This record gives sequence, C-alpha cells and structure tokens, in this order.
Amino acid sequence: MTARAPGIAPAGDAVDARVTRTRRDVLAATIDELIENGWDGATHARIAARAGYAKATIYAHWPDRLTLVRDALAQFGEMSHFSPTGDLRTDLIGELTSFRTAMTAHRLDRVLAVLAERSSPVPELVAMRDAFVEDGERPLRRALDPYLSGAPLEAATAMLCGAIVHPMLLRGHTPSDREIAAMVDIALEGLGVAGS
Amino acid sequence: MTARAPGIAPAGDAVDARVTRTRRDVLAATIDELIENGWDGATHARIAARAGYAKATIYAHWPDRLTLVRDALAQFGEMSHFSPTGDLRTDLIGELTSFRTAMTAHRLDRVLAVLAERSSPVPELVAMRDAFVEDGERPLRRALDPYLSGAPLEAATAMLCGAIVHPMLLRGHTPSDREIAAMVDIALEGLGVAGS
Repeated sequence: MTARAPGIAPAGDAVDARVTRTRRDVLAATIDELIENGWDGATHARIAARAGYAKATIYAHWPDRLTLVRDALAQFGEMSHFSPTGDLRTDLIGELTSFRTAMTAHRLDRVLAVLAERSSPVPELVAMRDAFVEDGERPLRRALDPYLSGAPLEAATAMLCGAIVHPMLLRGHTPSDREIAAMVDIALEGLGVAGS
Repeated sequence: MTARAPGIAPAGDAVDARVTRTRRDVLAATIDELIENGWDGATHARIAARAGYAKATIYAHWPDRLTLVRDALAQFGEMSHFSPTGDLRTDLIGELTSFRTAMTAHRLDRVLAVLAERSSPVPELVAMRDAFVEDGERPLRRALDPYLSGAPLEAATAMLCGAIVHPMLLRGHTPSDREIAAMVDIALEGLGVAGS
C-alpha cells in the first residue's frame, strides 16, 4: 500500500484494484453470456445485469459489443495451457488434454462455435477469431517447430487441433485419453519424429 | 407417362413432379438462408419468399423449422463425394479434397458452423447435426476401416476431418493441395498403413 492524498478516496491502488475488478467481472460476464446465449446474448444490458454493474459503466469502458468481446477473448485466452516438460510426446498429449479440459470445463467449445458461426455475418469478428485461435495453437506449434516447417507443420497443427475440435463441436464426442494418445502417436510416427 | 383419369389435371406423374420440384426448391432455399443468415434466417416467411412459394404450402409440408432443416440437411448431404479407386492414399486425398470443395463451393463450412453453434441452445438439433456429420464422415471411415479399429480409427477419423474443419471454420485458412497430401501422408505413415 502507498500513501494516499488526504480527502480523496478511493484513490491510487484502490482505484486500480476497483478498475481491475470491474474489468474482470464484466469480461467474465461477457464470456458467460456468449457461452449461454450466443452472440445475441452479449448485450450491454445483459452483461451489466449479470456482472452487477451499471450499464453506463460498461459503455464508458467498452462502447460496443466488439470491444467487449475482443477484451473478453483476450482474458479467456489466458487460461492455463500445459507446462512443457521438453518431452515431445508428453507435451503434445498434455496440451491436447488441456485443450479438451478447456472445452468441457470452461466451454471453449461454445466460444469457438459462436466465433465460427458469427464471423461470416459479422466480418469484424474474423480478425478476433483468428487471433484467438492462433494464440490457442501457439503451444502446439512451439512444440512441433523444432522438427517441422511448411506444409507438414501446417498439416500436423491442423490435424492435432482438429482432432479435438471436430468431434467436440460437430459430433458431441469428447475424445478419450486413449484417443488423444493415439492422435499423438499417429502424428509422431507419421512425422518420423521420436517421442519419449 | 401413365394414363390419367379424364377431367382431373394435373394428376399422377405431373403431381409427383410438382411435389418433387417444390421440395427441391424449398429445401435449397432453406440451406441458402442458413448459409446467408444463420439459424434465425431459416423462417417460413423468408424461405417462402426466396423459393417463390406460398407460406401455407411450406407449412403444409413442414410444420416447423426443425423439419425443414432436417430435410434440407438430408438433401444437402447427398452432395458428391470422391469415387473410391481402391488405392487408400488416392482415396483419402480425393475425399479430403472433395470435403474442401464442399466447404468453399457449397459453403458447407457455414452449414457446419450454424449446426455447431445452434446445437447448444436448440437441443433438438444435436441428433440432426450428429447424423449429418456421421454421413459426411462415412467415406473416410469406410476407406480406413479395413486397416484400423477402436481408438486409432476414431483418432485418425477425427484428425483427417478435423484437419479440414479446424483451419476452415476457425482460422479462415483453406488447406492447400500440398497440405492435404501432407495430412494423408502423416496419417498413413503414422498408422503404419501403406499408401500407393
């Protein structure tokens, strides 16, 4: 804590803490609305009601739905990835398992489905979706990068991400641990890259 | 042509032909509305206007949006797949290339995104989505089936379908011919299944 100017309260750290808290609450409410009610649910009125803030407060920080969703995605995207061990097979299985957990526990499947669907009628969403997905892919690409480049790197990244995305978004099937291990083994064997 | 009862026209084949044409037009308009405007676009009023039929005609055949979408998906799903040659590598590359074409030329990407997104708020869509995607996966599974079963078959199917779905729905990236060939080679090599 730092000293405060007398007579002005709250100030300094307290204001910062309040702004941080407002920001966190509002962005979490934005994601929750997207998850539960889709793009049309993410209105300032609903988010304000859900987060417990005045609508004017939210408008003051985020003038439209796109800025809200952009910041909400950035916050949501910080969710934990697997901590790499340096063993490629372990790291790929760990990352795909984290991806699956994000889908089931945090409803990333729902966020991705809304982004996939709305990016066509709302073209401003395309860049946000692409940036969000690129961030999500990064740990996988980083793990594969020392071994691959060009078309095989693109193909392997698409296959591994898609192996979680396709069954979860389009078949209501959550890949099992055995299936995830099989995906990684097919990729490593297919790429001629040694696992553990 | 068969003989007709006199004085009653149109009848027999003419009626059948008219019903077939109405059905085809209305279901094509349903898909077009889904592609352009998403789930909310597929109303009886918009589909009637687009197909050039009276709303009452459409209600008579399809009492609600779900029956319309179910039949439209069945018609859409009959779009051409690759004709198998018996050579596994050729057939997998051919099937993934057809899948990519369906995405770009017929906007299957858009239909899949709508199904992925709306299956959560509209639970009646889940079974339709699953059946539609299962039908789409069938040629790939049939090609892989003699060589694989269990977790590796599930993993390989998810990887190959997902390798098209993930980049196209979530990164606005259309896999190149080289990337598709790399996907198939990774899968075949990884599964220990000989290609051509």
